[in-house]
Amino acid sequence: MGAAMSYPARDSGHEVRLVGTHLDRDIITDAEKTGFHITLKRKLPDGIRYFQFEELNTALTNADLLIGGVSSFGVDWFIENVIPRIPESLPVLSITKGMLDTDEGELIPYPWLYAKAAEKLPLHLSFNAVGGPCTAYELADRDHTTVSFCGNDIRLLRQIKSWLETPYYHISLSSDVMGVECAVAMKNAYALGVSLAVGLSERLEGIGGKLHYNSQAALFGQSVKEMRRLLIMFGGHEENIALGAGDLYVTIFGGRTRLIGTLLGRGLSFKKAMESLKGVTLESIVISQRTAAVIRKRISRNTAKAEDFPLLLHIDDIISNGVPVDIPWKKFE
Amino acid sequence: MGAAMSYPARDSGHEVRLVGTHLDRDIITDAEKTGFHITLKRKLPDGIRYFQFEELNTALTNADLLIGGVSSFGVDWFIENVIPRIPESLPVLSITKGMLDTDEGELIPYPWLYAKAAEKLPLHLSFNAVGGPCTAYELADRDHTTVSFCGNDIRLLRQIKSWLETPYYHISLSSDVMGVECAVAMKNAYALGVSLAVGLSERLEGIGGKLHYNSQAALFGQSVKEMRRLLIMFGGHEENIALGAGDLYVTIFGGRTRLIGTLLGRGLSFKKAMESLKGVTLESIVISQRTAAVIRKRISRNTAKAEDFPLLLHIDDIISNGVPVDIPWKKFE
Repeated sequence: MGAAMSYPARDSGHEVRLVGTHLDRDIITDAEKTGFHITLKRKLPDGIRYFQFEELNTALTNADLLIGGVSSFGVDWFIENVIPRIPESLPVLSITKGMLDTDEGELIPYPWLYAKAAEKLPLHLSFNAVGGPCTAYELADRDHTTVSFCGNDIRLLRQIKSWLETPYYHISLSSDVMGVECAVAMKNAYALGVSLAVGLSERLEGIGGKLHYNSQAALFGQSVKEMRRLLIMFGGHEENIALGAGDLYVTIFGGRTRLIGTLLGRGLSFKKAMESLKGVTLESIVISQRTAAVIRKRISRNTAKAEDFPLLLHIDDIISNGVPVDIPWKKFE
Repeated sequence: MGAAMSYPARDSGHEVRLVGTHLDRDIITDAEKTGFHITLKRKLPDGIRYFQFEELNTALTNADLLIGGVSSFGVDWFIENVIPRIPESLPVLSITKGMLDTDEGELIPYPWLYAKAAEKLPLHLSFNAVGGPCTAYELADRDHTTVSFCGNDIRLLRQIKSWLETPYYHISLSSDVMGVECAVAMKNAYALGVSLAVGLSERLEGIGGKLHYNSQAALFGQSVKEMRRLLIMFGGHEENIALGAGDLYVTIFGGRTRLIGTLLGRGLSFKKAMESLKGVTLESIVISQRTAAVIRKRISRNTAKAEDFPLLLHIDDIISNGVPVDIPWKKFE
């Protein structure tokens, strides 16, 4: 997704410096030589300058904006290896989706986590984030895409928007960091939940057979219900549920989250399902477990009710406790 | 859908009397002879008694519940021909989705419209309604389905629920008639809106080609945003947006609303698109026009803002004013 952001950035006429992490060495080497991104499977825009991670400082010199595109598994690495090197004049726009749970039963959006880490150094940095339904492939194909940029400083957000807006990349702005980040983080957990119905259909119709939509829609509706409760519980603005619903929709239609949900729905144990994914840990699994951990903590303290989150708790039971899929339909009522 | 309700009703052990309107004469004659429903394309449950419309009074005698399954185009007919014959002891559960617009800029849920019509007779009847994501075919296949029953009398709703609940038909209850009805009526309008992106994909990929999801998800998110605003504007409870989102999801995946949206997205004029539907008027079109009429009235009185409903107003422009599809992406921001 980091590389995909080079399309709106280049199309808006900016110089783009694409820096790989230590895991992206081949991608950068290859793209520099051929202009082709081997995992995005697309020709990148012309005129990008490529940097290996050791050259980060050079890449950051006189930059106007740092777009951070690590996956949520790279958040600690980003804090340790990138944040200390960011000039205070350089605003950050993070496209990493996810939240961190705390022992106190809170969920922390990554921009807040980054800001906390920076303050300790101490560095006064501005962390902003992108939420909304956007697959990297389709952004690279310049399909119409709507996203929300969130952060504390609305004037800065307006400036970043003016830098990246294109005829196909549509940006709304929000000062509700918790709401945006919570909505778009949760969609990963619930996309797994909705996908269970795909596998349940396949039990009846065979793999690749006719899909059943009443059950998918029931899980979709329950997902939006629970996502809205989480949004409110953690202090986000309710209106951002629309962003979460759109992001949930796009996540159901592809990728590994749908695959794992489908496999579980077919009746595979979590262990077996993960084997077929060759052990790749998914963001959907991590965020489900983190959110469920927080909710269970709050239930034990009587600050949350189990009956408000039957789908989330069942997803977590499947993942964390090896429970077979048995959708708690009657608890949705 | 009326006939499909015989599955949960029979599976719960009730006597079912299926009464056709004057338009359903062949369906009833055929089903009585063969047990097969020619438009539902399913064998109906055993033990149903069949009635032509002239036998309505017999069918109503000593009934516990009247399930009204006319389409929204039969609402006036229902008011004129059925309501005057309903015993006051017989509660009604209506599965008709839609709302009526008034000159005063209001939208009226059908249960309220029915109650008003009954009061004039005068008859004291209890009108309740069903909302939620449920296709008749899948209900007939006994797929897991979640719905919401709404009405003024929660004890009566509990009783009706106990009559119709089955292991696959899951019923929640709500006293928020406006919220439930508004959410599930609007999904027809917005399902047309989301389907525009299907046709727009086909312009690029050819008919039946790869679908693009960023744009569908953008329209889905905008739909939920506008549906939530409508829900609040007309006095429904915000939480029912989840029901509307689930219902929107199921409606996108089939039927004539997706077809008309897709045809329009491909670039056909509304007139041409309707021709390929052989002039069948769709609920999605009617509810789009009615809701837009109300919003335009309110805009002219400064009680609504055009910028809050760009998608709805564009859908209405396509339908009512022959405007070509040109999604107002930048207005979604």
